[in-house]
Amino acid sequence: MGFATPQDAEDAYYDALETADIQAMAAVWVESEDAFCLLPMAPLAIGGQIKRLWQTLFASGRGFDLQVKHCLWIEQGELAIHLVEECPQTATGDPLPPIYATHIFRHEPDGWRLLVHQNSPGPLPPPQTVPERTAWA
Amino acid sequence: MGFATPQDAEDAYYDALETADIQAMAAVWVESEDAFCLLPMAPLAIGGQIKRLWQTLFASGRGFDLQVKHCLWIEQGELAIHLVEECPQTATGDPLPPIYATHIFRHEPDGWRLLVHQNSPGPLPPPQTVPERTAWA
Repeated sequence: MGFATPQDAEDAYYDALETADIQAMAAVWVESEDAFCLLPMAPLAIGGQIKRLWQTLFASGRGFDLQVKHCLWIEQGELAIHLVEECPQTATGDPLPPIYATHIFRHEPDGWRLLVHQNSPGPLPPPQTVPERTAWA
Repeated sequence: MGFATPQDAEDAYYDALETADIQAMAAVWVESEDAFCLLPMAPLAIGGQIKRLWQTLFASGRGFDLQVKHCLWIEQGELAIHLVEECPQTATGDPLPPIYATHIFRHEPDGWRLLVHQNSPGPLPPPQTVPERTAWA
């Protein structure tokens, strides 16, 4: 079954990511050779390759817990585009540089599903500035 | 003026990129706060920020000549999604690892324009394999 809204499909994507649940992840996606998934530094996955990509990523059983900030929604006809900022953390809870992700959802006969996920690393953090020179006092 | 087809808009994008022509680049884009541009390691640019981003990238006057391979087209209503592989080269013509780019075009009242550009670095090339050990002969 697809989802009632694009947001429901997106919530299911991040839930599956957090719990490393391959069946839940597979159920989020449009089942078509039109679908594609582009993760940074990972090979492009199209259609049936998407489930295999996530099986590899979930092989350790460890999920990915990301904080997500909503940047922009574009809804037009049977497609919805969502730009989000994903904020990963280190194992000790320190924030890492954000990653931008674009989701494209499509309304299928059974509801909304994810057609495209692409994410891109953001800019590197600025170099630490050298403190201004002050008088030796 | 927008373009007669999404492909015409895409051709104009790569022509502007090659010639570092800021007016031609600005003319490719949807003029709306919905538009966004995500280049690897660059800050997110939304709406009016897009032209300023390209002004910065074109400041040296040098363009970017990319070979482009077409991977996937999805056309649905007023939106068209195109996944391409961009193949950059070094200054001496040696190929660099490909970059995947997603374009989303929207049909505006005056024709097709670019709504979203996002690109992501592909996987790193595999490490050079160590040749098999052979007898010292």
